[in-house]
Amino acid sequence: MVERIPVAVMGATGLVGQRFVQLLADHPWFEIVALTASDKSAGKPYREAVHWVLGGDIPGQVADLRVEKTRPWTVEDAMIVFVALPSSVAPTVEPALAETGKIVVSNASSMRLEQDVPLINPEVNPDHLILLEEQRKRRSWQGAILKVPNCSTAILTLTLKPVDDKYGIREIHAVTMQAVSGAGYNGVPSYQILDNIVPYIPREEEKIRNETRKILGKPGRTGITPHPARIHATTTRAPVTDGHLEVLHVKLEEPPTTLKEIIKTLENYTGKPQQLQLPTAPPKPIIVARENNRPQPRLDRMNGNGMSVTTGRIRLQEDTLQLVTLGHNTIRGAAGTGILIAELYLKTTGQK
Amino acid sequence: MVERIPVAVMGATGLVGQRFVQLLADHPWFEIVALTASDKSAGKPYREAVHWVLGGDIPGQVADLRVEKTRPWTVEDAMIVFVALPSSVAPTVEPALAETGKIVVSNASSMRLEQDVPLINPEVNPDHLILLEEQRKRRSWQGAILKVPNCSTAILTLTLKPVDDKYGIREIHAVTMQAVSGAGYNGVPSYQILDNIVPYIPREEEKIRNETRKILGKPGRTGITPHPARIHATTTRAPVTDGHLEVLHVKLEEPPTTLKEIIKTLENYTGKPQQLQLPTAPPKPIIVARENNRPQPRLDRMNGNGMSVTTGRIRLQEDTLQLVTLGHNTIRGAAGTGILIAELYLKTTGQK
Amino acid sequence: MVERIPVAVMGATGLVGQRFVQLLADHPWFEIVALTASDKSAGKPYREAVHWVLGGDIPGQVADLRVEKTRPWTVEDAMIVFVALPSSVAPTVEPALAETGKIVVSNASSMRLEQDVPLINPEVNPDHLILLEEQRKRRSWQGAILKVPNCSTAILTLTLKPVDDKYGIREIHAVTMQAVSGAGYNGVPSYQILDNIVPYIPREEEKIRNETRKILGKPGRTGITPHPARIHATTTRAPVTDGHLEVLHVKLEEPPTTLKEIIKTLENYTGKPQQLQLPTAPPKPIIVARENNRPQPRLDRMNGNGMSVTTGRIRLQEDTLQLVTLGHNTIRGAAGTGILIAELYLKTTGQK
Amino acid sequence: MVERIPVAVMGATGLVGQRFVQLLADHPWFEIVALTASDKSAGKPYREAVHWVLGGDIPGQVADLRVEKTRPWTVEDAMIVFVALPSSVAPTVEPALAETGKIVVSNASSMRLEQDVPLINPEVNPDHLILLEEQRKRRSWQGAILKVPNCSTAILTLTLKPVDDKYGIREIHAVTMQAVSGAGYNGVPSYQILDNIVPYIPREEEKIRNETRKILGKPGRTGITPHPARIHATTTRAPVTDGHLEVLHVKLEEPPTTLKEIIKTLENYTGKPQQLQLPTAPPKPIIVARENNRPQPRLDRMNGNGMSVTTGRIRLQEDTLQLVTLGHNTIRGAAGTGILIAELYLKTTGQK
Repeated sequence: MVERIPVAVMGATGLVGQRFVQLLADHPWFEIVALTASDKSAGKPYREAVHWVLGGDIPGQVADLRVEKTRPWTVEDAMIVFVALPSSVAPTVEPALAETGKIVVSNASSMRLEQDVPLINPEVNPDHLILLEEQRKRRSWQGAILKVPNCSTAILTLTLKPVDDKYGIREIHAVTMQAVSGAGYNGVPSYQILDNIVPYIPREEEKIRNETRKILGKPGRTGITPHPARIHATTTRAPVTDGHLEVLHVKLEEPPTTLKEIIKTLENYTGKPQQLQLPTAPPKPIIVARENNRPQPRLDRMNGNGMSVTTGRIRLQEDTLQLVTLGHNTIRGAAGTGILIAELYLKTTGQK
Repeated sequence: MVERIPVAVMGATGLVGQRFVQLLADHPWFEIVALTASDKSAGKPYREAVHWVLGGDIPGQVADLRVEKTRPWTVEDAMIVFVALPSSVAPTVEPALAETGKIVVSNASSMRLEQDVPLINPEVNPDHLILLEEQRKRRSWQGAILKVPNCSTAILTLTLKPVDDKYGIREIHAVTMQAVSGAGYNGVPSYQILDNIVPYIPREEEKIRNETRKILGKPGRTGITPHPARIHATTTRAPVTDGHLEVLHVKLEEPPTTLKEIIKTLENYTGKPQQLQLPTAPPKPIIVARENNRPQPRLDRMNGNGMSVTTGRIRLQEDTLQLVTLGHNTIRGAAGTGILIAELYLKTTGQK
Repeated sequence: MVERIPVAVMGATGLVGQRFVQLLADHPWFEIVALTASDKSAGKPYREAVHWVLGGDIPGQVADLRVEKTRPWTVEDAMIVFVALPSSVAPTVEPALAETGKIVVSNASSMRLEQDVPLINPEVNPDHLILLEEQRKRRSWQGAILKVPNCSTAILTLTLKPVDDKYGIREIHAVTMQAVSGAGYNGVPSYQILDNIVPYIPREEEKIRNETRKILGKPGRTGITPHPARIHATTTRAPVTDGHLEVLHVKLEEPPTTLKEIIKTLENYTGKPQQLQLPTAPPKPIIVARENNRPQPRLDRMNGNGMSVTTGRIRLQEDTLQLVTLGHNTIRGAAGTGILIAELYLKTTGQK
Repeated sequence: MVERIPVAVMGATGLVGQRFVQLLADHPWFEIVALTASDKSAGKPYREAVHWVLGGDIPGQVADLRVEKTRPWTVEDAMIVFVALPSSVAPTVEPALAETGKIVVSNASSMRLEQDVPLINPEVNPDHLILLEEQRKRRSWQGAILKVPNCSTAILTLTLKPVDDKYGIREIHAVTMQAVSGAGYNGVPSYQILDNIVPYIPREEEKIRNETRKILGKPGRTGITPHPARIHATTTRAPVTDGHLEVLHVKLEEPPTTLKEIIKTLENYTGKPQQLQLPTAPPKPIIVARENNRPQPRLDRMNGNGMSVTTGRIRLQEDTLQLVTLGHNTIRGAAGTGILIAELYLKTTGQK
């Protein structure tokens, strides 16, 4: 029998924490050895501590695991720590974990823009892992911190990476319609969103602008040179459970002459996760929908087990590419990408 | 007692037809003398012919009015005919009505782009009524055809008119989230839209591009010179009953130096309907929302009795103005604007 | 000019508190002199303290009123105090208010079942006001506490009172589909209710059983003899903003022979609020919908300005009456009934 | 390799037709050899004829199958014909099919109540297959017609069968909240159901009453003696995509003394499909939810691959059992049960 790599999930009772638990439960490489939550949940078996909202059953392997407090020492048996903590808690825990040798793969937004912190969307910028050298040198950590991008940004950058590679992106107009799960289980009151749209998500637009430019940027010795594209973003919340839809209008440096060419470019795109055959890598990271009324959140969010983005409505108007793209916000936009980052790290460092 | 102007509504049982009936019922100038519908509804009292879906009661004045077939001669007692027919039926009826002297105010999309047909958003381009001279000359009509803009376009052009006047618009990126009522009562199956967004509305994007350039264009002797702005539009359908939300990113020729200035420009904007004190004119055509999570369809669609647009999230990034605007699609975007056009026509021709 | 009666709203920033403020703003008898909220809101003008979610604007009369802490002495200028506090806070404040002479009209569930506390649905059991004698005697209060029924119970008892009067009720099977506003603004997370129904509302079924039997019961010197009907209730939460729908199957002692008779009984029903022409009394407390697919929450909740219930689908199967009834849960089911109780109290005590 | 049984789906482009296709695609016993639809779809490959709305991809095996007209002779290669036709079309096609030897398993409501037609919910009344003898004798058919129950009835009878067996049912009060998919893809306009509930479904209540009494009835030589229970039903439509929720208040002949006993009775229930290990039989036909806010449509509809019902909120008040039950309306309530009927028929007739 294969030896499994011990992992922990911090913040395991929240919506993203539950996704981590669900995706890790049957993972071929990993074994959950610790789950943490708030102090008042600590001590209870996971099945009691969690208000499970993903449908199906709580995975049997962890249902009776005793939930720990969220402290550096409660996950000491883990080699990798997946973090789904609120951004108010993460900054105090993560560095302590990295110092004691843990590989921290975190969905929290803190530190995403620091020069020596890799912000990784595995198909898009696996080469940014090189920042870890600088990180260890500068901070004297035995472990490391790797960051998962903001949910909308993960979907956007995966969609646009092949476009940028081939045609050069000069300007992006991004308008999102984001699912309520993006705000966490209690994030959006139903009285606010039924028969309604809320055209504002705090700090989201600035995350899209900054993180996109970092992820599509060029790694150098001491950090990333951000991509020079101008980015305009307006983000909204829609009455949808899961799946962020994004309308992208993109000005290209060297627009192609045919739509077919762009479609082929998107459809054939693969990255390092596919080449390395990582367990969580979707066979096709970008699925191009042929029907003119797709992608749709309810129908397309689970494509590629939630790890593919689905792109459609591709149009070209002079130098401006227009398209609609969709991804599962708590899988491709959070827990799934977190696990894929861990897989990428292990494989490229020869530990798998 | 004041003499009322006799009017008819063609297509009175559909969703927009019902709005016309509702808004005309207590109108100070007008009196409904005829309602038409499909042949199979003809002969029934309106209360039986209609499946009333607007809430409240069917207006008492018309509940027992006998519905007529949709033919030119069934509305001969009317001076003004409001048309809410499908675009497949309108083209055969409307010219016949105009020929026999009726003032046709039509929500149907046919003929909107013809050179001698005024496409009017009353605050924005009342001067386009001048096309009627050319129309009568060329077609030898005693009456006239006036067109109501596409719903999204009505909301967009009202919002951007003061911006164009003051700062000059070079380019528009418009992304809409449109209510299901925009497709008519049976237009969007609920199995399609619950927990979902559909990123496509047939022919809508091209209407926004073409109609916006006509409405914001300059009238000349024989037609309109379209506004030169580049327009990119992506339109989507959202699970909202009423109220179209539009995200607009607008490149300006001469951007202002402060946001305050733009807000003042929008907020203080009025047009001819306000100057003439037309009954359906909202006191403030553009309401600027101060809260950062507004406008919202459910909360703001009835502002100004459904005739105001509500604008918020106003941001300026270099030369690009970003904002979110909202209007009631079957009032400002259809029946309400139709009635305001009729009022404008009567007042400017001295008939009121 | 008429002297207005000074009133206060405690818990004025919550959903029911906002309804009280909205309905009191233009009330012909009352004038709001104080609004209270949690300590952290105190000191701010109401417009800043409240997250106004009812649509339209915050009433101008109170927008700049400074919000007070929720203490007995912060409302001393008021004669009547409307309470929209959580049931955890109400029990400590209300008796203190009554002691110092205030007329407390409370939506909080505490004390509703106490023998000397009138639980009033004004059309149904105005005679229960007689309990105030016992209350004052027993508790030596100068003021009084009057309770508004649970929202579902208010709708149910108004609908069934004429049925009980005429045919005698032996057994009720009540199944509700309740709007999310019934749980307060933050009560139902949207991730829980989109594309879903939750078949459980804590403590609601027992409230319906106990309060219905009290309200339909007979007042005696020292308390109410509960109505003997057997009541079975199952309550659910549906993705609806406002308006509770209730399916009632009711076994009758002496069933009528025709449906027409029942319809007439419901339709012609009026009570003391109508006889006294109280300002908030709807002309028709029970509206019978004739279409077979009504009542519907979105179309019928505002009937009678939210104070009427709308009843339909009336069927008779042997001794069992079956019907569907609907009412606005924060108006008829809370704030509106609260105000109507105050009006009834003032009129019957000769103070108006 | 195993020989597969050739089957056809009539009405394969509708919502239930698509479910049949989806469930049959990977079925271990069956192979789709023909798909039929309306005349205007005939001749096209299935992928073009269908507007696939189930999520995921159209099964590869049938994507290119040419769709046939809905006629008896277009399915002549099939041994079993699954019918998902509207009830206006089914009555003319089904007898012709049965006459020529086809085993017709039909979801159409016609003929469900005829004395010699088995209306089968496989766990509940497999013994009703005996009616086929009478059917063949009386009608001289070589084939047969078997009927799938109405969706709500399938869920109700599966839930209550063990209750009736053990405690005897005297009276049922059933209130349903049904998903929009139950009306077919175009059945419920979104403008009707957003932020709303519609308390009426044509003919549904009478189907529940009549079909329940037949299914729970006793088979005799020439037909079924209906179960004597009194049944009261009110059916409503809710804004839910899939999954019918039913609140059942059931008066028992001999109520149990403890809730535990009922829970055990439900939970341990299995029927012939489980004993015969039919491919589509869920291991547990009735899943008892322990959380007090379950079952919920979105979380529980896919339990047992959509073939289990999930039951919760079990309460006992004197002689009245109260519970909430849920099932997937187009799987357990239509296509899934249709396939399970076919499996049961084949196994019990020794053809498998």
